[in-house]
Amino acid sequence: MTAYEDLMAHERRTGALASVAGRLGWDQETVMPRGAAEQRAEEMAAMEAMLHARRTDPRIGGWLDKIDESALDVVGQANLRHIKHHYERACRVPEELATALARVTSRAQGQWAEAREAEDVAAFLPVLEEIVALKREQGAALADGGDAYDALIDDYEPDMPAADLQAMFDAMRPRLVALRAAALEKPAPAALKGDFDEQGQMRLARQLAKTFGYDMARGRLDKSVHPFTSGGGTDVRITTRTSPSDPFNCFYSTIHEVGHGCYEQNIDADYAFTPLGSGVSMGVHESQSRIYENQLGRSRAFTGWLYGEMTESFGDLGLGGADAFYGAVNRLHNGYIRTEADEVQYNLHIMLRFDLERQLIGGDLAVRDLEEAWNARFAADFGFAVDKPSNGLLQDVHWSAGLFGYFPTYSLGNVYAGCLHAALRRDVTDLDELLAKGETEPATTWLMEKVQRHGGLYRPREVITMACGMEPEAGPLLDYLEEKFGALYGL
Amino acid sequence: MTAYEDLMAHERRTGALASVAGRLGWDQETVMPRGAAEQRAEEMAAMEAMLHARRTDPRIGGWLDKIDESALDVVGQANLRHIKHHYERACRVPEELATALARVTSRAQGQWAEAREAEDVAAFLPVLEEIVALKREQGAALADGGDAYDALIDDYEPDMPAADLQAMFDAMRPRLVALRAAALEKPAPAALKGDFDEQGQMRLARQLAKTFGYDMARGRLDKSVHPFTSGGGTDVRITTRTSPSDPFNCFYSTIHEVGHGCYEQNIDADYAFTPLGSGVSMGVHESQSRIYENQLGRSRAFTGWLYGEMTESFGDLGLGGADAFYGAVNRLHNGYIRTEADEVQYNLHIMLRFDLERQLIGGDLAVRDLEEAWNARFAADFGFAVDKPSNGLLQDVHWSAGLFGYFPTYSLGNVYAGCLHAALRRDVTDLDELLAKGETEPATTWLMEKVQRHGGLYRPREVITMACGMEPEAGPLLDYLEEKFGALYGL
Repeated sequence: MTAYEDLMAHERRTGALASVAGRLGWDQETVMPRGAAEQRAEEMAAMEAMLHARRTDPRIGGWLDKIDESALDVVGQANLRHIKHHYERACRVPEELATALARVTSRAQGQWAEAREAEDVAAFLPVLEEIVALKREQGAALADGGDAYDALIDDYEPDMPAADLQAMFDAMRPRLVALRAAALEKPAPAALKGDFDEQGQMRLARQLAKTFGYDMARGRLDKSVHPFTSGGGTDVRITTRTSPSDPFNCFYSTIHEVGHGCYEQNIDADYAFTPLGSGVSMGVHESQSRIYENQLGRSRAFTGWLYGEMTESFGDLGLGGADAFYGAVNRLHNGYIRTEADEVQYNLHIMLRFDLERQLIGGDLAVRDLEEAWNARFAADFGFAVDKPSNGLLQDVHWSAGLFGYFPTYSLGNVYAGCLHAALRRDVTDLDELLAKGETEPATTWLMEKVQRHGGLYRPREVITMACGMEPEAGPLLDYLEEKFGALYGL
Repeated sequence: MTAYEDLMAHERRTGALASVAGRLGWDQETVMPRGAAEQRAEEMAAMEAMLHARRTDPRIGGWLDKIDESALDVVGQANLRHIKHHYERACRVPEELATALARVTSRAQGQWAEAREAEDVAAFLPVLEEIVALKREQGAALADGGDAYDALIDDYEPDMPAADLQAMFDAMRPRLVALRAAALEKPAPAALKGDFDEQGQMRLARQLAKTFGYDMARGRLDKSVHPFTSGGGTDVRITTRTSPSDPFNCFYSTIHEVGHGCYEQNIDADYAFTPLGSGVSMGVHESQSRIYENQLGRSRAFTGWLYGEMTESFGDLGLGGADAFYGAVNRLHNGYIRTEADEVQYNLHIMLRFDLERQLIGGDLAVRDLEEAWNARFAADFGFAVDKPSNGLLQDVHWSAGLFGYFPTYSLGNVYAGCLHAALRRDVTDLDELLAKGETEPATTWLMEKVQRHGGLYRPREVITMACGMEPEAGPLLDYLEEKFGALYGL
């Protein structure tokens, strides 16, 4: 065996073990008995310690030294690039720190869920304090003299410093604020009203998953507090949630996670358990979930088809037709919850989190002051006050899971989705005609060919640039939003 | 840290990782997407290789050499005994063999399930052939010159050579055959007839689990093809199955698995992730499941209470009263399926498997001749022919999971349950009065105190002997069966 083959055998086995650790996360959020949280934290810590030992195995350095990169094909070179990058980063984090993070974030999941249910911020802050302290430490170790928050972002979006994200947000903010203000002055389209039984919602959610190309033989759809996608290859699981009064939450959460799930399912099977075998970055991942959910799923054309399906499932919706249904799906509404936000306001939620977590990691904001800071910023940005913690800082799972640097990739994904959508419309000229019949296949095939199948073969910006024929920037997303909501609100 | 502390820290972490591997098994049987089987096999193989490396870590030998056993308390000494035994055994199995077994048995689960559904023995035999070859190899490696089958049994029941089991079966066989023949000559009690909806069955199954003391906050109840218990400590999961015409299958499978589950849940929490933290042997495990299921659950007293619950759930059962219900629960019936066998015939099913698997491992029977051997033996023992493979050699999951040497522990568990039951009746004199009201707590508390809480602290025979005040033997079980079925059939 050559050094490259030895290295890849090691990587594949590490990939398989990491896949097991990932499935523990799915288990914890969907089926784990409540009383098992402490024990699970020990298990996660043991897995993390073992993975960390494998990822910092000095043999990796030895293999890397021996490999002649120029003798490798593009796949080999891409593997090598990822492995080098991850090896350097892994070696910077002491095993004890990695283990402590795994243990505390595993334990924190249950505490967050309980605090959220009890509307009890104080019950959550001690564990969040622990997490923030450990993430600062991790960020500093990874940054190796650079910026700690930048170093944490790299886990989710390589080559994307906070300053670049700040510039992106600065470009987005004024046009989004203006669009929001103009739309909110107009009369809002009617909202959907009624009581929609859970079984019916889950039945249609399953149908939507299938409609968008998600393969149930290689996945499953369950319910969880916060919808998510987990796994890779032939075992990619998604979750959604239901609320009797708000079936759109269930349906669009499903379509969103289907976007993530299809990305993982459609990666070249040859890359399984290698660094190329999963989505290349969270931003690119989010571009897939967002384009499925918004540019396709919330389009006038597709909502026309969905209107028919919903009417068939639930009877007359009391809206008077498909145009009004489109309005109900897309109406701007004052709300607290990021995942329920409309397309115009969504990125404002992200900017709030981006600024706060950057301050937390930078040491400019203490955890004990976080609720006050959140609530003040929310009131300033959205014009009304947070009424309870589950509508405020307890709404998202991310911080309890230690995911600092993750939030901005949501907006990046929106920006990428805007660029991909513009290119998709150029290539698939009868897109609306197809979507109106519930036919998503030409669109999802385009995305599979251009983005999904490549996995980690190219760099994040690279794969988007190749797919779109342009360097990604916020313009196409903002143009799309202004056109869509301008028409809907008669601006 | 002393050598003992180092050793135990290593053990606890290995225990946590083994717990993760165990949960993969639960996942595979309950929720895994069908298309994920091959990928899962890779994951299981990676986990098994990692666990094998930890279990054969030469540092264990070093720590063992340094520990002064006489300085340890009884818990320490028991831990040491287990660790030494497992270390010696683990070192005898090459990592490649351990990995190959994990991979093939993971893959075989799906193939067995598909072959069973398709009634296609030929589709299953190739992978079974692989498994048997690997188990022979493993048995020979473990036996170190001794008997390969004995060495495999040791995984499930330490200190229990096949010759001792043979002697036990020889003592049981004539009395069971005679009891069976006498009962089958008499008119059988009426069977339960009707159609029982699945939701109602699962509702009552949940109630039964609670009634027998299973803690749902530290476990869960799901459905699977073959009922099983998985996990330990604060995450012990059980499964059952439903059939519209046979709710007893669901209920008594549930009570059976509850016995296993309560054993695991009730072990002293201080033993978590150590060698003492799980049931001491499969025989003792089965003694708990069997006494819950049979001596308690199928007693005249408890079936009186269950009759009331079933009538409330499903309406009139058409049996005419609690005595007839007791007859329906306990009636002898000609059947193919081990897990559905009555108490009298159950052990005959085990003897068949014991003899066949002993021959398979000993090299006296080829896998290609297994179906013929099974069917001939079945016809000889039960007096009628196997009608289809799912009623024959494809009925059990064990061989596809590589569990050779496991089956005889079922009968051993019955024998232990017979001894425990006799002792329990001496200590809890109003047992029937309580069971008639659905009160199992004094009985299950007795079992918890005498057996369950000790986990692996004592040797299997030792814990049974201490609990019963006698060396375990088949007499009490056979006496109980002759008395119970003598009365029921008027012999």
